[in-house]
Amino acid sequence: MKKISVDMDGVIANVYNQFMSMHKEEFGTEISPQDLEGKFETEVFPEALKYVNSKGFFRNAPLIEGCQNVLERLNDRYKVFIVSAAMEFPNSLAEKHDWLREHFPFILWQQIVFCGSKEIINADIMIDDHFKNLNSFSGDTTLLFTQPHNILTDPGKHTRVNTWEEIANILLT
Amino acid sequence: MKKISVDMDGVIANVYNQFMSMHKEEFGTEISPQDLEGKFETEVFPEALKYVNSKGFFRNAPLIEGCQNVLERLNDRYKVFIVSAAMEFPNSLAEKHDWLREHFPFILWQQIVFCGSKEIINADIMIDDHFKNLNSFSGDTTLLFTQPHNILTDPGKHTRVNTWEEIANILLT
Repeated sequence: MKKISVDMDGVIANVYNQFMSMHKEEFGTEISPQDLEGKFETEVFPEALKYVNSKGFFRNAPLIEGCQNVLERLNDRYKVFIVSAAMEFPNSLAEKHDWLREHFPFILWQQIVFCGSKEIINADIMIDDHFKNLNSFSGDTTLLFTQPHNILTDPGKHTRVNTWEEIANILLT
Repeated sequence: MKKISVDMDGVIANVYNQFMSMHKEEFGTEISPQDLEGKFETEVFPEALKYVNSKGFFRNAPLIEGCQNVLERLNDRYKVFIVSAAMEFPNSLAEKHDWLREHFPFILWQQIVFCGSKEIINADIMIDDHFKNLNSFSGDTTLLFTQPHNILTDPGKHTRVNTWEEIANILLT
């Protein structure tokens, strides 16, 4: 059974929504998805690091549309691992764990990985929104999940996917 | 640079010491290392699960002798990753992180992995006290760190090491 490494932030957890709503609450101004194109969060939100370190940032993140249903079906056909670079923000560990338990009860503790660098990950397929993770991956299938920060860059050897429906079309047909 | 996956419990963190001292405190009787030979903790300590879920169990674990010095030297020569199956006890995540920060300041957040199953780990060398982790490892060097639960079993294709000095002799000469 093939192994899939599925990223959390920007792939199943809508952290952009969190940045935008917390920025609006603090500054009263709206940042649109277009303002984010080609940029990392810290370049656009002056208080980005404060937001990610604040209580509830990860615990209350909305889901990326369609991920629950597709992940549940992938879980029948593949060995699914949720792999998050959570160690950068150690306060997020408990929140991310609780978030996964709430939204993905079919994902067992054996399938969760909180790491730093993803170069330690051994799988066949990786779904991620960051080139640094996909580029160092040793498996044979790499899906780049579209987010504003990567939207202007040519995916190169990776396959760009814009929705979970597209992931289902590639991995479940 | 070769990658090493180093286990926490029973390899750098002396959790046996925690089980024995908490058992003695609760029941007033001593369990010796000999009583533990060939058995898992849950077979010997009737309250083992209560202990691992109690505050401070992981945070206050003593170090296995010699591991700090050897790990610091390994860290210069290899890509060291501390890989712990911490997800089984989610309350341990913060404690294990803080314990690592205190005792191994030279280990960066990029080098820490808290997982469930270790079959997701991609490295060249694994140091672990559990056969289930070493047996499913895809790298080429597997060191079985002696603990009472594995002491009666033939290490088979793995290399048994009894101390961190022995690890240094194998990996640093």
